[in-house]
Amino acid sequence: MRFATNQAAADAILHGDLRSGARLMRMLDDRVPGATAILRLLYPHTGRAQVIGITGNPGSGKSTLCSRLIAHYRAQGKTVGVLAVDPSSPFSGGAILGDRIRMMEHAADPGVFIRSLATRGALGGLTRSTGDIVHVLDAMGFDIILIETVGVGQDEIDIVRTADTTVVVLVPGLGDDIQAIKAGILEIADVFVVNKADADGADRAIGDLRGMQMLLNAMPEWLPPIIPTIAARGEGVATLASEIERHRQFLATSPQRREREQARAAFVVTGLAREACSRRVDGWLRGHDEGKALVGEVAARRCDPYAAAEQAITAALRAPPAL
Amino acid sequence: MRFATNQAAADAILHGDLRSGARLMRMLDDRVPGATAILRLLYPHTGRAQVIGITGNPGSGKSTLCSRLIAHYRAQGKTVGVLAVDPSSPFSGGAILGDRIRMMEHAADPGVFIRSLATRGALGGLTRSTGDIVHVLDAMGFDIILIETVGVGQDEIDIVRTADTTVVVLVPGLGDDIQAIKAGILEIADVFVVNKADADGADRAIGDLRGMQMLLNAMPEWLPPIIPTIAARGEGVATLASEIERHRQFLATSPQRREREQARAAFVVTGLAREACSRRVDGWLRGHDEGKALVGEVAARRCDPYAAAEQAITAALRAPPAL
Repeated sequence: MRFATNQAAADAILHGDLRSGARLMRMLDDRVPGATAILRLLYPHTGRAQVIGITGNPGSGKSTLCSRLIAHYRAQGKTVGVLAVDPSSPFSGGAILGDRIRMMEHAADPGVFIRSLATRGALGGLTRSTGDIVHVLDAMGFDIILIETVGVGQDEIDIVRTADTTVVVLVPGLGDDIQAIKAGILEIADVFVVNKADADGADRAIGDLRGMQMLLNAMPEWLPPIIPTIAARGEGVATLASEIERHRQFLATSPQRREREQARAAFVVTGLAREACSRRVDGWLRGHDEGKALVGEVAARRCDPYAAAEQAITAALRAPPAL
Repeated sequence: MRFATNQAAADAILHGDLRSGARLMRMLDDRVPGATAILRLLYPHTGRAQVIGITGNPGSGKSTLCSRLIAHYRAQGKTVGVLAVDPSSPFSGGAILGDRIRMMEHAADPGVFIRSLATRGALGGLTRSTGDIVHVLDAMGFDIILIETVGVGQDEIDIVRTADTTVVVLVPGLGDDIQAIKAGILEIADVFVVNKADADGADRAIGDLRGMQMLLNAMPEWLPPIIPTIAARGEGVATLASEIERHRQFLATSPQRREREQARAAFVVTGLAREACSRRVDGWLRGHDEGKALVGEVAARRCDPYAAAEQAITAALRAPPAL
């Protein structure tokens, strides 16, 4: 099933038609030519949704927390789009054997739209796909967009960084402290959650986190609050939502907002450009005789990969663009 | 402190001088111009080391396993270079606060060289850095190169995939089964380790894994063995090493070997090309007035990011190459 015209597709999506939105997402997955043309029609109408990134290690309970947040926003009458980029999340889970486990409690609610992304897209495709899907969800008119990623890979950290508000979920005693506060996590958080706050070591985790904040942020405009939650019982979720709201209000009056919008735009454009370059270079190296021969020379160590890369860029980008 | 000439640097590294190797790695970190020229001199002399990738979730005990494997190879008189790409690993750990925790038991052994990489390098830099460091370790003459990555991000999976032999470390009962066997992990393993084999559920984990293998690999040339280990006590490590050796021998006589070498060369060249494109596009978007203006237009939603990406590629790659 196809859209009659790109404009018809864009109109349906801008009217919030769920099936049309889902169809465009599938077209993007399948790299159907023309899908980008629809995205381009949608783009001027995006930027209205509140985008919340939620990241944390597998086992931190962030999926449960997401589910609770969805319920919270739904109770306020807000619609929620969810993008799950965590392969271990029940939102996206189990894709390897084809069985998708979705949040059953929200499955029947037309005010909630859940989309999962496998993290196996090659060559920077993950970043592009995420941006594309956020644009579609935004154009569909969702009030809130939740992006759930696992807080490990650089790609995932970059993705969650594009949110208006980034929530980092930690749990007491999961591995050592070094793991919990690993590189990058402290700096990207607008709000910290210490989930499973009834577990041993929760107070210590909160104390450690606060100590680290003092060390790193001398006098920040915004000191990320630390919210203890017990997601499994819904405890602390209302506080979390109100801190997210407080951060939204902070951003609205802060010069940080413009900076973030610039940074996000730069990130999206760089990601698209990177992916387009990769795809063309990759296509040339695997698809063209000249490219395959070059790879053979590198494998035989008759040509070094640094020279080969320059050759590949020049040759591949000579071809016409195919974004 | 600088090298007298590129050739002097290459000669010293090819003679196995640890300080020269470390210095080149620092130059690569700092993106010192000219570092690539030294790598190019080294490249024809690489390809001798046996490269072993070890991946698994945080908490799977793979760092302990690495440490035991190092001891095993050292006892055989082999030298070992280690590249730790896992931010939660004690090999690379704690970089955020500047304190590096190294494997103390190997720190004084000149036959072991440990190098860690933060996973925070932007825009595909991780893949490039890994390839570069493996080339340096290989040129330095290490018999074995161990690459330790966390098995979560696509980058990390891609990296470990470039090894001759990929070891995937699982543990019983860490999260649900979906998590343990997440997307991609089954397909990349040449050898499975079920670590903490004395824990509850170990037999079930092994059985599940074997069942899944039967499902996915009808009649493979190489059925990845499943090795139970208790790394903390060194149990199973000798078996693991002999299965890694058996896989090396299998590859030596298999057409897979050439395929892998081709795939690795393509991966390295694509990674370098991707990183070079990214760097140039990024530099143009952030450094040039025209680029910054374009980002502003995207942020204001007056230009869509898809058109902007094409514009950025064309403009940025017009500049002379700076690999």
